[in-house]
Formats: sequence, C-alpha cells, structure tokens
Amino acid sequence: MTGNPDPDFAAIAQRIRESVGRQGFMIHVGAELYELGRGTCTLAVDRRPELLQQHGLFHGGVTAFLVDNATTIAAATSRGQAALTAEYKLNLLSPASGDAPDDGKEKHTATALASIAMLSGEAAAKIPSPA
Amino acid sequence: MTGNPDPDFAAIAQRIRESVGRQGFMIHVGAELYELGRGTCTLAVDRRPELLQQHGLFHGGVTAFLVDNATTIAAATSRGQAALTAEYKLNLLSPASGDAPDDGKEKHTATALASIAMLSGEAAAKIPSPA
Amino acid sequence: MTGNPDPDFAAIAQRIRESVGRQGFMIHVGAELYELGRGTCTLAVDRRPELLQQHGLFHGGVTAFLVDNATTIAAATSRGQAALTAEYKLNLLSPASGDAPDDGKEKHTATALASIAMLSGEAAAKIPSPA
Amino acid sequence: MTGNPDPDFAAIAQRIRESVGRQGFMIHVGAELYELGRGTCTLAVDRRPELLQQHGLFHGGVTAFLVDNATTIAAATSRGQAALTAEYKLNLLSPASGDAPDDGKEKHTATALASIAMLSGEAAAKIPSPA
Repeated sequence: MTGNPDPDFAAIAQRIRESVGRQGFMIHVGAELYELGRGTCTLAVDRRPELLQQHGLFHGGVTAFLVDNATTIAAATSRGQAALTAEYKLNLLSPASGDAPDDGKEKHTATALASIAMLSGEAAAKIPSPA
Repeated sequence: MTGNPDPDFAAIAQRIRESVGRQGFMIHVGAELYELGRGTCTLAVDRRPELLQQHGLFHGGVTAFLVDNATTIAAATSRGQAALTAEYKLNLLSPASGDAPDDGKEKHTATALASIAMLSGEAAAKIPSPA
Repeated sequence: MTGNPDPDFAAIAQRIRESVGRQGFMIHVGAELYELGRGTCTLAVDRRPELLQQHGLFHGGVTAFLVDNATTIAAATSRGQAALTAEYKLNLLSPASGDAPDDGKEKHTATALASIAMLSGEAAAKIPSPA
Repeated sequence: MTGNPDPDFAAIAQRIRESVGRQGFMIHVGAELYELGRGTCTLAVDRRPELLQQHGLFHGGVTAFLVDNATTIAAATSRGQAALTAEYKLNLLSPASGDAPDDGKEKHTATALASIAMLSGEAAAKIPSPA
C-alpha cells in the first residue's frame, strides 16, 4: 500500500504559500515560489530590466532577497513553525546575467549561509500571520 | 579664504550618481541616493506596500539591497575607482516598520559587514560602466 | 557622595572571571581578560612564537579565538546571563605583527560581527557552569 | 597504462606541508594535516584539556582555527599559489565534545563560508614563505 509519505506537509505548504503570497516585495520583484519541500525551497525570477544594475546584470539586492526569503521559507517547512531571518552571509561569486547557459548547465552565481530564528507559538502569536 | 577641500570629489560623485541612476532595481525599489561623501553613502527609501513582507514590515530583501548598494557606492567614492560587492553579512536586529519614531530617535534595525572588490582600470574596462 | 553606579556588576564580573579562568584554551593561548565592563570585554595576548603562522605574524586562529571569546564574554556581562557564541564573521584586515606601533597608534587588524545566544536559566542549568 | 593523474600536485603538496609545518600555532594546538588533495584539506586534532572551554567542550576558537587554516590550505592546493584568509563566517551548530560517536556517525558541529585571497607571484614575494 502506498500513500502520502508526509501527510502533514500539504497543510504546512498551503499555509506557507498563502503567507508568501502576501509579501508585497515578492510580487514587486516578480519572484515565484517554484518548489517547496521539507527543508527546501526554490524561488525563481525572470530577467527583467527593473531587476538589473547598471551593467545589465541582476542586482545583488535581488540575489539577497531570494536568499533571504528562500532560506527562511525552507526553515518554516521543517515543522510548519513560524520563522524569521536572523542573519546571513552572502558571497557573490560570478555575474548573474540571467541568460540560459549554452551548455545547459546551471551557473553558480552566489553562496550563502544563514541563521533562521524559529518562533515558538507564543512568539509567533505576537505577529499577525507568520510565514 | 574658503575653498573646496576635495576638488576631485565633485567629478567622482557626478560619475557615481550617473552610474547609480542606471540601476533598474534602484528605481524599481524607489530608493534614493540621499547623501554621498568620501567613504560614506546614505540611501533612503519610503515605506510603500510593495516593499513589505506579510506582516507589514520592510522585507529583509529591501534592507539587503540597501546594504549591498550603499557599501559598494561608499567604497567607490574613496578613489573614484570601480567597485563590486564581493560578500557581506547582514544581521537583522529589529523589525523595520518604517514608522517615524515617536521620540525622534532613529531605530537601529540592521548591521552589516561587507567586503568590496576594488577594480583596477583594466578590470573595470571589461564591464560597461562601473559604479 | 560617590558610590558604585552598578552594584550588581561586581558579582557578575566575579562569576565571569571564574568561568573564563576554567577555559583550558584561554590558558593555553596565554590570553588575559584585560578589561571587563557592562557590554564590553577586552582580551590581551602577548606575541609568542607558538601563536604565529609561517610568516611570523599572529595566526588568524588566534584572532578568531579572541573575537569568539571577547564577544561572548561581553554579551554575558549585560545581564549576568549565560551566553554561547552562535556565529560570527571575521574580516582579517591587515597583518597582525604584534609589534608596538612606532607612532603609538593602535593598529586595526580585524573586524568581526557576531551573534551570541543568551541562555535562559533553564537552558543554562543543563550545562555545568556557564560563562 | 596507469600513472599519476596529477603529477604537479606532489610538489605543491610538499611545499604546503613544509609551510604549514612552520606554523607555531598549528604545533601549539596539536593539529595535524590529515589529508590534502586538489581543493581539499582535512585537519585533525585530538581532544586535550588545553583545547577546551569551561564546560569541557572544544573551545570555539579551536574550531575557528581549524576552519581558518583548512580553507586557506585547500585554496592553496588548487594551483599551488600562495593564499591568505580574507574573511570567513562560522556557525557553531552543536557542542563539539570530541567524543567518538556511539553510532559511528560523524557529528556536524560547525559550518563555515570563507573567502580566500589568492596572491600573485609578485604579492607572494613580499612575504617570507607563503602557504
């Protein structure tokens, strides 16, 4: 007999998607919650002129936003607990042109290491509607 | 007799302002180059719904963008040399509500520590128009 | 009439000094708790061959140890609460020769930004004798 | 026909081992260059009282020293080029007791992200004997 190996996750994922959907900046940047799993989150964004810096590359601030949001969302999936970004370090490794690579390989443009604060139910209740 | 104590800086500041003016993401976020000096840069942004997260606070990604840009611009002012953000660490210390504080004191919402790559003329020539 | 402006601090400082005195690595490195105040801590170490790297400069690991310890001790002074280093970022800025500077000015060799976990009484009770 | 797939590496490894062998702090801590490959380095240290903090765990400064050294040595292996630690971030994840785990699994006690400065021949010549 097969079945959903993680029945609780559907409800958690639903709650997170709604919460992220209320982020004005997510919509403004045009980022999309591309994939969501236990402990993982992939965000995607299309190259658009308003996301670039003066050399026509993605602005580092867009990368930072994606890192900030993806790490915190990934943390929130683990137990469905509210999460807040506490701090992170971001290394920008190579120009983020946003071009589809000729060889089909993804390009590694940044690496980050983040600490996410997991909120107790009590702490979460003090903020309107946690992610 | 008075005089400009830093005559070279006017040209550097002018070049940096033009370069920052070509950042699509700067315009999209609605950030403003508020103050520019030798080794210093202050960016400002007004609270607007599209810059917030789901609890009505500034999204951490907006803070990260301001940190990324302000540190690199500040580095570029030092000798008018092209600069690129190499890496930074950002600690989010308290909710960035964007409200004017009742007591007139500024609120400290984040602290960062960044490394900026200063480009040689040769390296800078390989990119269109460095900040 | 004068008096101690912070009567509780003497007991906190005493407890911290005892706790730091039990750090084997502090003794092994030969570091000294030079100054202790509310929210501040200065550690000192003399230049000795066993603290250097292959170029005769202080090893970056010595700097990291001092940063790790000083930030956590400083945090512990604030309310006399047990503290643990959670994470930090360390930028090594210039060679740490350990020479007394000719001009009497101190040399800035490193900058760090740290997050320290403050333990509740309950959490602290689970570890032998917190700093 | 078989053969050494990386003939240049033996000379690089030899030079690095000699250089690391001249680090007074490496000897003082009692750390050992356990494994060396192209782009990788493993350092090892035995639990000894003088490496601990007041709770009988490895001092975070020992972890930082190992991270600092291992990342820079690993970078130096890539092209046999002199390398200096520029900055790193270190997250201490769980107590480093140094006990052999009962289940034979290694324990993950820390994660770091580092930037290493690779020196040109000219820059390296200015320091006695780079790693």
